[in-house]
Amino acid sequence: METPWEYRFSCRAQAMKSSVIRELLKLTEQPDIISFAGGLPAPEVFPVEAFQRASKKVLAENGPKALQYGPTEGYLPLRQLIAEKCSQPGYQVQAENVLITSGSQQALDLIGMTFINRGDYLLVESPTYLGALQAWNPYGPQYVTISTDDDGLDTGDLEKQLRKGPKFIYVIPTFQNPLGVTMSLKRREELVTLADRYGVPIMEDDPYGKLRFEGEDLPTVAALDNKLRGGKDSTVSNVVYMSTFSKTLAPGMRIAWVIAPPEVINKLVMAKQGTDLQTPTINQYITYEVAKDGFLEEHIKKIVEVYRERRNVMLEAFDEYMPEGVTWTRPQGGLFLWLKVPEYMDTVDIFKDAVEQKVAFVPGISFHADGSVHNTMRFNFSNSTPEMIVEGVNRISMVIKKKMKR
Amino acid sequence: METPWEYRFSCRAQAMKSSVIRELLKLTEQPDIISFAGGLPAPEVFPVEAFQRASKKVLAENGPKALQYGPTEGYLPLRQLIAEKCSQPGYQVQAENVLITSGSQQALDLIGMTFINRGDYLLVESPTYLGALQAWNPYGPQYVTISTDDDGLDTGDLEKQLRKGPKFIYVIPTFQNPLGVTMSLKRREELVTLADRYGVPIMEDDPYGKLRFEGEDLPTVAALDNKLRGGKDSTVSNVVYMSTFSKTLAPGMRIAWVIAPPEVINKLVMAKQGTDLQTPTINQYITYEVAKDGFLEEHIKKIVEVYRERRNVMLEAFDEYMPEGVTWTRPQGGLFLWLKVPEYMDTVDIFKDAVEQKVAFVPGISFHADGSVHNTMRFNFSNSTPEMIVEGVNRISMVIKKKMKR
Repeated sequence: METPWEYRFSCRAQAMKSSVIRELLKLTEQPDIISFAGGLPAPEVFPVEAFQRASKKVLAENGPKALQYGPTEGYLPLRQLIAEKCSQPGYQVQAENVLITSGSQQALDLIGMTFINRGDYLLVESPTYLGALQAWNPYGPQYVTISTDDDGLDTGDLEKQLRKGPKFIYVIPTFQNPLGVTMSLKRREELVTLADRYGVPIMEDDPYGKLRFEGEDLPTVAALDNKLRGGKDSTVSNVVYMSTFSKTLAPGMRIAWVIAPPEVINKLVMAKQGTDLQTPTINQYITYEVAKDGFLEEHIKKIVEVYRERRNVMLEAFDEYMPEGVTWTRPQGGLFLWLKVPEYMDTVDIFKDAVEQKVAFVPGISFHADGSVHNTMRFNFSNSTPEMIVEGVNRISMVIKKKMKR
Repeated sequence: METPWEYRFSCRAQAMKSSVIRELLKLTEQPDIISFAGGLPAPEVFPVEAFQRASKKVLAENGPKALQYGPTEGYLPLRQLIAEKCSQPGYQVQAENVLITSGSQQALDLIGMTFINRGDYLLVESPTYLGALQAWNPYGPQYVTISTDDDGLDTGDLEKQLRKGPKFIYVIPTFQNPLGVTMSLKRREELVTLADRYGVPIMEDDPYGKLRFEGEDLPTVAALDNKLRGGKDSTVSNVVYMSTFSKTLAPGMRIAWVIAPPEVINKLVMAKQGTDLQTPTINQYITYEVAKDGFLEEHIKKIVEVYRERRNVMLEAFDEYMPEGVTWTRPQGGLFLWLKVPEYMDTVDIFKDAVEQKVAFVPGISFHADGSVHNTMRFNFSNSTPEMIVEGVNRISMVIKKKMKR
């Protein structure tokens, strides 16, 4: 007889339902659609030639090693390179604090596995990154949301929430996904001070921090926490920091990393060993070759130029086409911005009509851990040409205008 | 103040302890040691040139696509190629039944996440693959072990265990790790019949099946299950089948796969999405280029020749050096064989002395889910030259002789 598989699935798997939003987003895969929905970097700026040179070199000089199993922690020269690149004055990162992961998504999963007990409370921004919720939901946490504004996470709201005894705080301080906003220096300092006062660890997710179009770089939350502790090196820290090469080199390589105190790295390594043994050896060798000797920094400049123009074009198109009552964020970097329509409107409805007009975005509801907000939408500007941006924004504005009350 | 991290870890992470065995195995990483401990393929037979050609071609022709995000299910041409290669007469695999994973270790983890509730019973062979236990332990199962002999899993013992209501049966039928033995055709048929009778799914792990040195290929358990159901295609099956390119091409690429009915693939895809989003795009493009057009089959012939010689040399060295009272398996393929010393001996003790003599193996206790057997040891023969094998076996035999009662 047939196997009734659905009765064999774990409670974890039973709870994984294909969401309405995910089903809707499949519609955006049609080739003739202008999509602001994904989070894709622009393939035009992938450093293909650098990857060609690096692959050739790695296979010629280190073929058998690069194709063999490697350590779970990652390829040591790459860990050293990342430690150097992430060190800041007064914040020294060591290779032993670095774990290479298969994309930031795996860092989130390993954090879930290592920290979350069923029922634990987690503090997250409202809205927050959808992929973090997807990584953690199987571990059964509950979420407490913290409000945000143009300066990022609202630290005025934070202390009250910290007293609820959360397992950790998750924050994307720079060019937040989905908001595009950046946490001010003052708020970053308040965050590390309050988190330290209550002994609650911070998970800092920083995939976009290097993609700044304008304004001054801010210290990471990890670096500020380090300063609070008297500028020791990163072996003592209240922060687990995550970043990636997906947005600065290429996501198809799946090379990201975690920086944390050795006792945390230790547990994450054990979790990773059971999960996928190691990140592909050859990808680590190649990424090391591409990123070293200053290439990464030079390449980021090119990306920033392209994305800055696209953001500018999108903001200008919004200014030109969007009706009154619609507002949006003005990100200083990253890949996304966030748009609000009047409260009586539902962006899932707008999405359905927009797709008929061959244009797409992500309805904001997916990014709210409590599923409470219906009038927001996330736009990606990195993966469409300026011409497509103008045309797409125009089409969406017409859909919105049609649905607006006169 | 410092963060007391150990109190923040989940119960799952608290339970991950660095095992005595793992600490011991670190000793085997000394460069001057002859190690039969790992499960490494021979780097001398990695098809480095084929990977060079394929990388060059992929980056020249499809650079931006290969470096971009891709679907969680995997690169469609690779899924199609695997479906073709795994199809047998009377057993047709479709691309929709194939999920690409980041090594077989990830397949095991996704199965754990998708099937295991805390406290579930799992049927496993005694001994079984250590990595499966590592992948599943965080999900909190209990194990029921089934005895094995030279014909693999003992189906005489199976029905009694099936009546205990296990969530699934996990089996490595061909060139089992750690035993090296292969389940006979008769037992495979009994396994699928009994599992079907009790409605209990089978997880078939088959990383070594193509590495046969002698004897006839046997149908996979998945194919026999299919036959039992009247030879329909693989969309209806009681088996989740796993295999990998790690042992036939190169483990550093981390490309493996699962074959299962679509409803299972669906859940595994959702689990994978939260876990690492996708297996690296470029690795899938390159592996596809290398494996197609018959290269894989030609290359496997070369590997088989090298490994057959090494197995022969190891068996001959055992015959020559091992004292009476020591017995071992005679695998027809794969990477491993299994050795038993008299029951009064402890192979952890032997290991410690062996490492002092600059030679290593894995004490068998790690492969027993119930940790009950102390007089066994696993030998890998793929990753040492014939000369090293003779020398290493000689050294270990001397350690054993010294510890034997006269």
